[in-house]
Amino acid sequence: MSNDLCEILRAFLERVWNEGDIDAADNYIARSYTIHHDPGDPWDGQTLDIKAFKARVATSRAPFPDQRFDIVDMISGEGRIAVSWRWLGTHAGDMPAFPASRKKIAMSGLTIYSFDGARISGHWQVADRLAVFQQLTG
Amino acid sequence: MSNDLCEILRAFLERVWNEGDIDAADNYIARSYTIHHDPGDPWDGQTLDIKAFKARVATSRAPFPDQRFDIVDMISGEGRIAVSWRWLGTHAGDMPAFPASRKKIAMSGLTIYSFDGARISGHWQVADRLAVFQQLTG
Repeated sequence: MSNDLCEILRAFLERVWNEGDIDAADNYIARSYTIHHDPGDPWDGQTLDIKAFKARVATSRAPFPDQRFDIVDMISGEGRIAVSWRWLGTHAGDMPAFPASRKKIAMSGLTIYSFDGARISGHWQVADRLAVFQQLTG
Repeated sequence: MSNDLCEILRAFLERVWNEGDIDAADNYIARSYTIHHDPGDPWDGQTLDIKAFKARVATSRAPFPDQRFDIVDMISGEGRIAVSWRWLGTHAGDMPAFPASRKKIAMSGLTIYSFDGARISGHWQVADRLAVFQQLTG
C-alpha cells in the first residue's frame, strides 16, 4: 500500500503541479484538503474543497508557468509520506510587489503529505522562502 | 529497528541540541556526518568528523542558548527518518550583522536524517529562514 501511495503522490506532483493539468486533481485529492502548515502560502491553515484546491494550484502556478518539482527522496509512513524536493521556475507572471522578471528561480523544501485512503488530504510543508526572496530582489 | 532509531534521534535532539550537552554527541553521531543540503547553514555541503560536528553545534547554539526543537511528526524509512519540527530561541548572543536583540524567535522546518547503523550520519534539511529574517529585522 505504501508503495502505491508513493506512486499516487508522484503522479499527482507530475500531472497537477508540473504539467499544470489542474483538473487531474480530481483523481488524487480527497473531499477536503487541509494545509496544516505552509508558511508564506496564502492558504496556510485552511481546509479546501476540490474547487478551492484547484483555484490554489492555478493561482500558485500563474507566476511560474514552467515550474517543476523534482523529488529528491520519499519516505512513507502510516497514512503519510515525507518528500524532499527541489523546484525550478521562470518568473514569467506578476506577483504582489514582484512584477514578472523572467528570472529563473530555484527553491528547495520538504513536505509531509497526509492521505485519506488512497487520496491526498493535506500537507505540512516548509520551503526555503528566503532563497526565493533573495533571488527576486537580488 | 526503526522505532529504536526514532528513540535515538529523539534523545539526540533533546540532549545535544536542546540541552546543549554537546559531548553527548559522542553517543549518537557516526564517524563522519554529511550535511547534504541545508541552505543557510555555514557547513552546508560539508562532511564533518565528530570534533567538527561538536564545533558546529556550539557555534550554532551560541546566539540562542535557550533554543529548543519540538518534534511535530516523525516518519521512519530504510536507514533514514523524516522529522517535522518547530523551533524557539531567544536571540541572546551576537550573529554576523545581527547583534543580540533578546527577541524571541520562532522557526519551523523539516529534516531527513540518515543513519549508519544506529548512528546518525547526516541530514537534508530546509528551515523557514525567511521567518527568522523577518523577525530579526522587523
